Amino acid sequence: MKNAAVVGIGQTKFGEHWDKSLKDMICEASLAAVADAGVEKQEIESIYIGNMSAGRFAGQEHLGALAADCIGVSVPATRYEAACASGSVAFRNAYNAVAAGQEKLVLVIGVEKMTDVAVPSAVLSLAAAGDQEWEASSGLTFAGAYALIARRHMHEFGTTKEQLAAVAVQNHSNAVGNPYAQFPVAVKMEDVLNANMIAEPLGLLDCSPITDGAAAVVIAEESIAKKLGNAPAWVLGSGQGADTLALHSRKSLTEMLATKQAAKKAFEQAGVQRKDMDVVEVHDCFTINEIIGLEDLGFCEKGKGGKFVEDGKIEKGGEVPTNTLGGLKACGHPVGATGVRQIIDITRQLRGKAYNQVNGARYGLNLNIGGSGATAVVNIFGSDVPDGG
Amino acid sequence: MKNAAVVGIGQTKFGEHWDKSLKDMICEASLAAVADAGVEKQEIESIYIGNMSAGRFAGQEHLGALAADCIGVSVPATRYEAACASGSVAFRNAYNAVAAGQEKLVLVIGVEKMTDVAVPSAVLSLAAAGDQEWEASSGLTFAGAYALIARRHMHEFGTTKEQLAAVAVQNHSNAVGNPYAQFPVAVKMEDVLNANMIAEPLGLLDCSPITDGAAAVVIAEESIAKKLGNAPAWVLGSGQGADTLALHSRKSLTEMLATKQAAKKAFEQAGVQRKDMDVVEVHDCFTINEIIGLEDLGFCEKGKGGKFVEDGKIEKGGEVPTNTLGGLKACGHPVGATGVRQIIDITRQLRGKAYNQVNGARYGLNLNIGGSGATAVVNIFGSDVPDGG
Repeated sequence: MKNAAVVGIGQTKFGEHWDKSLKDMICEASLAAVADAGVEKQEIESIYIGNMSAGRFAGQEHLGALAADCIGVSVPATRYEAACASGSVAFRNAYNAVAAGQEKLVLVIGVEKMTDVAVPSAVLSLAAAGDQEWEASSGLTFAGAYALIARRHMHEFGTTKEQLAAVAVQNHSNAVGNPYAQFPVAVKMEDVLNANMIAEPLGLLDCSPITDGAAAVVIAEESIAKKLGNAPAWVLGSGQGADTLALHSRKSLTEMLATKQAAKKAFEQAGVQRKDMDVVEVHDCFTINEIIGLEDLGFCEKGKGGKFVEDGKIEKGGEVPTNTLGGLKACGHPVGATGVRQIIDITRQLRGKAYNQVNGARYGLNLNIGGSGATAVVNIFGSDVPDGG
Repeated sequence: MKNAAVVGIGQTKFGEHWDKSLKDMICEASLAAVADAGVEKQEIESIYIGNMSAGRFAGQEHLGALAADCIGVSVPATRYEAACASGSVAFRNAYNAVAAGQEKLVLVIGVEKMTDVAVPSAVLSLAAAGDQEWEASSGLTFAGAYALIARRHMHEFGTTKEQLAAVAVQNHSNAVGNPYAQFPVAVKMEDVLNANMIAEPLGLLDCSPITDGAAAVVIAEESIAKKLGNAPAWVLGSGQGADTLALHSRKSLTEMLATKQAAKKAFEQAGVQRKDMDVVEVHDCFTINEIIGLEDLGFCEKGKGGKFVEDGKIEKGGEVPTNTLGGLKACGHPVGATGVRQIIDITRQLRGKAYNQVNGARYGLNLNIGGSGATAVVNIFGSDVPDGG
């Protein structure tokens, strides 16, 4: 295994981009990442692009070719899809190729252009991340699916609406001043609790928004990474897990086996401990999912996630600073871009230059979840080259 | 690099499956491949699924999770997309992981369920493999795009309608008796020339059909492959190339740079020659594309592909037996499944058990093209273990 690191990052602002196409966003993020890495685009050997549903959102498949074409390079380019975890599966495939010595310098892109279709159509397209035959076709949207999960978590463990709301309050507070966030605005507990109900118990501010955006990172093999200007964010471990697509097939609604599998593999490979993590990105498509993610990653006991958040453990000065630049909740959730955006935000922290910097952050991870948990990817990063390099 | 081989194959019949869902087809092909390999499904480490557009054709994304779920395993599963080359990019990613020693036994699936939407809608969905902004939105369907290519080939090189038709006649003749083919029927030259015009000069029988189908292969690392019952089809080389998405951006309409790049890499890795190939699968979505593919793969001079076909060089007893079980033309073209089906048909030949067997076939390749040539993948296979193993 070769060592590999994130050496360049770039993204569009996340939001509603009425004046930008899918191509425009891919170009903007990719060229920013290449420039940040300090390499020439012609040096890139391959493109790995994560995207969930450009076919439905933009009438465009064949995203790899689109990306290579609009960036202006002629290299192998493939799209990777695992619903909301598409960005991280693209990253993981790219990392594995570099770690295997098959490539040395590659570009990973995540993108989704969601606002060119009407909201009901977008919600239906998103439902395709679940089980079409058993869930989507009977009207179970994702807010509905996560509402079921939240209800069950409340029933089993006494989790409260206030604890769910505390996730939103914290993440929005973290995003204030983040120039890339869709909603960099603080919200109060009562704002979250009094927001319009979407799917009981999840109100509007418990839900991540519909967003346009692209994010890109350049991954380099050790010999190249050490020569470039940025402090590399070394990939220490990467794991991917799976669970049933439909919620009704699972033994438990409140535990995501895919997350546990992914975390186990990533931590085994990384050779670091949970307590070493200085900063984490946990997939907060709905507030309940951040609570469950913290539990399944092993940062707190099963059922205690709500209390963990309520007690301030995820704050910047807390035990596990989480979604320190706003998460999906406040940054927005352009589905295919989210995993790559998470990796960018961990990289910003490891570089020591995030606007909401966790002092001395050396280790971080991202948890990116597809659908209602049928796919999970965990990547672990460190600021020091692995094995003493 | 580890040696890796195709050790199990399985597919549905290609055709119109009104009684089968996307899940049903994935299961049928996958379980057949696993059974053919003589392994247990629980031994599979990962799933690589190629699919172009299940979002639009079946309201289903997150295909990896769907596949793992319906097969009944809980392993990392990701969808790979590069339009009509989706099956081969899934295969190539899987092969690279095994070659890198990251995995030992994996399942590759290709699938597309195209007949659940109306034909005009399917044609529009397929147009998403081209450039949506510049081509699809102005009405350029794929028959139209390939008609432009064919016209230019005729203009530059004197290629005739009869030479295009000869491709269809040969491929349909090869499919007679193939139990998996959608149209296992012989057609005559005059049938092809007199068929309804689709996009001048391409008539109905110059076009591959809209098809439902799934195909799956099991790839194993050398130590496992040698223990299993089937003669392994060893992967000798694999290459992927790229070109601009929109036709108007290319210097030439009659040459596919992506194919040349992919072939160059695959042959360099394989260490074998074009003249060694006993059997080839060349992407014949339209008759003109088989002619251009034979040229760009280097089996004949640029511009001489029509004559090459007319002279019988692609027949079973000819210089380069091509699409010996029917190709896309007669087997059908369930987009994401096609690349995997090509690999299955090469494997059948290398095992010496194809119903239309090329005697003593030891080497074969498949060329799988995405869109109008923006992606191309070439994989080369041999019946002997590489490096004298």
